[in-house]
Order: sequence, then structure tokens, then C-alpha cells
Amino acid sequence: MPKDTFSYESIGMIRTPFKSPDGMPIQPVGADTTEGIVKIDSSYADGLADLGGFSHCILLYHFHASGDDAPLSVKPFLDNERRGVFSTRAPQRPNPIGLSVVSVESIEGRELTVGGIDVVDGTPLLDIKPFVPEFDVPSETETGWMDASESTIRSEQADERFL
Amino acid sequence: MPKDTFSYESIGMIRTPFKSPDGMPIQPVGADTTEGIVKIDSSYADGLADLGGFSHCILLYHFHASGDDAPLSVKPFLDNERRGVFSTRAPQRPNPIGLSVVSVESIEGRELTVGGIDVVDGTPLLDIKPFVPEFDVPSETETGWMDASESTIRSEQADERFL
Repeated sequence: MPKDTFSYESIGMIRTPFKSPDGMPIQPVGADTTEGIVKIDSSYADGLADLGGFSHCILLYHFHASGDDAPLSVKPFLDNERRGVFSTRAPQRPNPIGLSVVSVESIEGRELTVGGIDVVDGTPLLDIKPFVPEFDVPSETETGWMDASESTIRSEQADERFL
Repeated sequence: MPKDTFSYESIGMIRTPFKSPDGMPIQPVGADTTEGIVKIDSSYADGLADLGGFSHCILLYHFHASGDDAPLSVKPFLDNERRGVFSTRAPQRPNPIGLSVVSVESIEGRELTVGGIDVVDGTPLLDIKPFVPEFDVPSETETGWMDASESTIRSEQADERFL
């Protein structure tokens, strides 16, 4: 099939305490206490209206620190086997779009303060969506190879594997 | 701040029974019984390995049927007030990237059959991620203006508002 190409523009930047992927929590649940500031480009600030009523939102962003390599199998943090990239959350992917569910702490002008952030400082923002359990949470789930307990994920941190 | 531009390539196509947004369920939970087939471009098929162990995955795709208009406030299906676009799931967004949580029904070669699909037939696929409750489900949530019961969402269908 013909491949279409889509061009997206950064709509802002995510500021966090993590200057590099090394030592960063691997997912939001492991970063509960970490706040970040999502700075929206001023031309999009009006789009933040009404987001304050939601406890959580979904950030979509570009994995800017993951390099250009995108193998179809990767060795994830939580495993020692190589796994198909689409069964992992590795930043190295054919289209390096990242997704994090974070808490909405406050909104002031074009700055959205979020909690539980797990991205590298300076990450370019692509989209913000409200998190809606009725849309986003299936009733029963299984997690295949991952089979990771929440406590394991909380204690895991990034290493050089995803640099 | 300077705006960066990112270029992503379609990695496949989502085939569904919905030939247009009209009459389509507005979110996966309203489309429980609808199956779709995600056809991955053959060059990416190996990336599907290990996804079969997960009950659900997250599809990221390009809203190809939403037009070029991207107002910063929209009138969503579930409300009669205009709302900031980042507090809605409207397809018309600064970067028209869509997100759906769907069930993984089966994988055969480069075809992934999913359940609970809510996108228009022919939607270009950008990414597939495993759905992991420990990453993706906050413990307590509030949904602001939406305040929609699951039963309401199940009964709602798209109308011309998002065409």
C-alpha cells in the first residue's frame, strides 16, 4: 500500500526535572511525585479552556531524545527478551510518538502543571486530550510478556538501554 | 518558542465497517461489538511480535476525514457549550492525531484484528502500543464538563458535527 506522510507541528514544550533519559522513571505511575510544566505555544493557549475540570490528561509528544534508530524488536526495561516493538513502550519506534497519562494540577495562562510526568526536559508537545475512563479504560486486561506488578514499575528507572 | 515540525509515515491502515464519521460510535466503549482489521505495512509486520499476549492495545492514527479546520474551541457531541479543544476528543485539532483503546482479538501475519473500533474505514495508522493498566490507568479520575455516564456514551453516535 502507498505510504502517506503526515507533518505535525510542535504545539509547546514539556519542562521536567529530567535532563536525560538516564534515571528517569519509566512510566508515569513510577513518577507520581514529579511535576512538570507543559508550556503551550501562545497561539494555542485558548485550547486549554475547560481542561481544568479533568483530573488527568493524555499527553502526546515527540520522543526527541531517542535517536533515529527504530528496530522492529527491542529489549525492554522490564524484560530480557527481545520483543516486537509494538508490544513495548520503547521510545525507538517507527513513528516516535510518546504517550503519557498525567494528572492535571493547575492551569495558568498557557502553562499547564502536570503530575506524574515521565519525559525528558524539553520534549516537544504534539497534543493534549482529556483522560476519560469510559473511553480509555477497558474492564478487564491482560499484559502478556510484561506481567509487571505496579510495585516493580514504581521501582524501575531508565538505564542506558533507551538512550 | 520556535516551532518544530515532525514528519511521520503511515505504517498501515485501519479497515472498519464505518465508511464515514456519520453514525459511527463516538468512542471504543460505544463500539464494543465492532471489529476492525489493522493492516500493517509488510515492512513493519515483525513489530507485531508478542502483542498477542496483551488483551488491549492503543492505536494512534491520523484523523484523515476531519478536514483542515482546527478551531481552538469546539462543540462536542456530549455537550452544547463550546469547549477548549484540548478538553475534548474532537478530531479537529492542531495536530489531528487520534487515539483509541481497542481489544486485541487475533494476529495473523501483518493483520491485527481488533474489537471496539471507532474510526473511519481507511484511517492511516501511526503507532500501536500495548495497553498497560499500571501505566495508563490513574487510580481516581474526574471528567469535568463531560460528566457523561457510560450508558450515555454507549448510546451516542456521531452526527455531522465532526464531519
